Amino acid sequence: MNTNDTDFLADWAVSSGFGAVEGTGGVERQAASEADGQHRRWFAELLEAHGFSVRRDAIGNQFGLLELVPGAPYVLTGSHMDSQPTAGRFDGAYGVMASAHACFRIAEELRASPERARFNLAVVNWFNEEGSRFKPSMMGSSVFTGKLALEEALATTDPAGVTVQHALDALGERGELSELPVASYAEIHVQQGRSMEEDGVTIGLVNATWAAHKFEFRVTGEQAHSGSTLMNERRDALLGASRLIVAARELVDAFDEGALHTACGEISVYPNSPVVVASEVRLLIDLRSPSEAVIRDAYERMMAVVERVSREDRVAIEIVAEHAWDQNPYPEAGVELAREVAEQLGLSHGRVMTVAGHDSTNMKDSVPTIMLFVPSVNGVSHNLHEFTKDEDLLSGLDHLTGVIGRLAAGELVAPAPTPIA
Amino acid sequence: MNTNDTDFLADWAVSSGFGAVEGTGGVERQAASEADGQHRRWFAELLEAHGFSVRRDAIGNQFGLLELVPGAPYVLTGSHMDSQPTAGRFDGAYGVMASAHACFRIAEELRASPERARFNLAVVNWFNEEGSRFKPSMMGSSVFTGKLALEEALATTDPAGVTVQHALDALGERGELSELPVASYAEIHVQQGRSMEEDGVTIGLVNATWAAHKFEFRVTGEQAHSGSTLMNERRDALLGASRLIVAARELVDAFDEGALHTACGEISVYPNSPVVVASEVRLLIDLRSPSEAVIRDAYERMMAVVERVSREDRVAIEIVAEHAWDQNPYPEAGVELAREVAEQLGLSHGRVMTVAGHDSTNMKDSVPTIMLFVPSVNGVSHNLHEFTKDEDLLSGLDHLTGVIGRLAAGELVAPAPTPIA
Repeated sequence: MNTNDTDFLADWAVSSGFGAVEGTGGVERQAASEADGQHRRWFAELLEAHGFSVRRDAIGNQFGLLELVPGAPYVLTGSHMDSQPTAGRFDGAYGVMASAHACFRIAEELRASPERARFNLAVVNWFNEEGSRFKPSMMGSSVFTGKLALEEALATTDPAGVTVQHALDALGERGELSELPVASYAEIHVQQGRSMEEDGVTIGLVNATWAAHKFEFRVTGEQAHSGSTLMNERRDALLGASRLIVAARELVDAFDEGALHTACGEISVYPNSPVVVASEVRLLIDLRSPSEAVIRDAYERMMAVVERVSREDRVAIEIVAEHAWDQNPYPEAGVELAREVAEQLGLSHGRVMTVAGHDSTNMKDSVPTIMLFVPSVNGVSHNLHEFTKDEDLLSGLDHLTGVIGRLAAGELVAPAPTPIA
Repeated sequence: MNTNDTDFLADWAVSSGFGAVEGTGGVERQAASEADGQHRRWFAELLEAHGFSVRRDAIGNQFGLLELVPGAPYVLTGSHMDSQPTAGRFDGAYGVMASAHACFRIAEELRASPERARFNLAVVNWFNEEGSRFKPSMMGSSVFTGKLALEEALATTDPAGVTVQHALDALGERGELSELPVASYAEIHVQQGRSMEEDGVTIGLVNATWAAHKFEFRVTGEQAHSGSTLMNERRDALLGASRLIVAARELVDAFDEGALHTACGEISVYPNSPVVVASEVRLLIDLRSPSEAVIRDAYERMMAVVERVSREDRVAIEIVAEHAWDQNPYPEAGVELAREVAEQLGLSHGRVMTVAGHDSTNMKDSVPTIMLFVPSVNGVSHNLHEFTKDEDLLSGLDHLTGVIGRLAAGELVAPAPTPIA
């Protein structure tokens, strides 16, 4: 193992200690939590120690900037350091740390051969990718790319009523950076799935996101005594919501194995009291598929369930919000560039789709973007026991370094640099 | 309408203003909330204005005592003034106010004819009957009757982590009363159901409680990414819990109409995050029936569901707590005494079972106890729109006054007076 690798693993071990859940290998480091703040301060020092200047924008995205070509746009690379509750240490944080170390290596090369640099280098730690504390997810990159208004994001509250603005200001993590011209973007992440492990692939060349249809439902019934009210007079919002959750799971069986993923991860119940029939339940249901046709079919079936439950259980079911997208490609030129780098390095590689969203999903609509995966043991994700082997972490870092080197040398140029909206 | 009646309705109107939810007729007055504290202070002043001395015990039960026969035990009567969230103004509070006014009337009679008094009079406002903020329900009467340890009750926390002791002390509602010899107990309540209204009955002579089996389940799955994890590898605790909720409702259809009531009113989900398969869900499921045989049959069916869901959805389902009771009679002598009073007053009456628990359910195991109902329009309960007509409130008050008069004159004597445990 060379010095670069041992340096990375040493920093990685320190990084993984922030918000560590003792005895598990996992972390709890939700957006703008105390642990997230400590992690960010340490990360800023790390960037500065390598000659990068640290800046923050108004939504708390944290940037490490290195100007090699005065006035030129930046090759941007990064991911997110926030986590879900009781989650894995790799999800997001690996991408940020690999990006930082890839830039450290490229910076060293370009300082030695400055004539090769066409663009400057920037590392980013996007704010609140997970969306567990503050919704929506991918908040920092959504504001950066102009998909979400800054004011709306800052006013979002967590379950305790704390705003994003208050939480970020308490950590001193909002800043004044208001414009960053970006030439291209690259992100590396652990796969949230096991296909690469099964196929023996070290570098995943992400070529598309799955199609999805996400719902927030509000089920409205009527508050009543849950003991004495006659069963056929009840309008039980929690019963209605439970039927939707069960039906969403049963939808899956109507399609080929693996063709449809459905889930409900979050629900809120009012009044949620032991002897009271619930009057209102809000819940999130997601439908995801690599196939747009499957999503359309599943959507129709879900709407039929909503109609039936509403009628049979005498509850109102309203779609408060929904968000759908088709299968969505990453630019082919980036996939090809990443494939060439993997070939040069002798790393096994394969094209792979991502089921989960990433900050790169936002960035790819604005600038040339490359998304990379390394394998995850058993595909365990959003779980304390998420794990990726050191050798895969290091291969991913080598590969990302190769990609950043080519981007910094001027490949995959954006038609026009994109400033912050 | 006589002065006694107008006095009652005037006080009742004031009482209903504490915690009133504007524009609804209902109240939000959970145990030891600010509104509960204001209500209690006003109620203490009312009792004192009628010559009763106000005392509190260590769990915040509030007593108004009138000693007519020095050293004699007390006829105790009351109910609770706390409410569920966004609930009706009659549930509990009517019983306390009717008890107070019944005692005011009897006190007046006995002050005029002191030779007729055999016992003293006590009104009680039991702490936390509802159990919505602090569990278990019927907390004050459970501690009073020695069914729940004082220390355990005081240490109970609400969802924000506030203990019962802290909440009561903040209101100054814990006191030093440590012993109260009780000769007999009477309670009046609005029916939580519509049978009396349908049968044209004004006074319900409660002769038994329904049988019940209540569960607290913990469903344990495994935290995972709710988008990318393969469906057949998930162990989704919220899916398992939803199947239990649906199954509990479907149990009802296996029995005659009205033979079984089932419900889930409360659920908590971890981590309850949009993109995470839940790892743990706790939920309460109740089975209630007038028939013990139905409860036994329903219990067996529920256990079969638990086994099936656990196996098919690969989740662990544990019974964290369960509490079962058979159909449980009120003493027949009390039912007969109440029937005689109704006859004398010319009030229509009928025997009725209670589905819901009441503080009298605790008291009847310690002392001779009478439980009475007045009708509720459409049986609406635990709902802002709960309603009982003034004429029924006043008939109930007349009836309770008759009952308290006979109890104070020495009927239905306890074998031995019961002090606080």
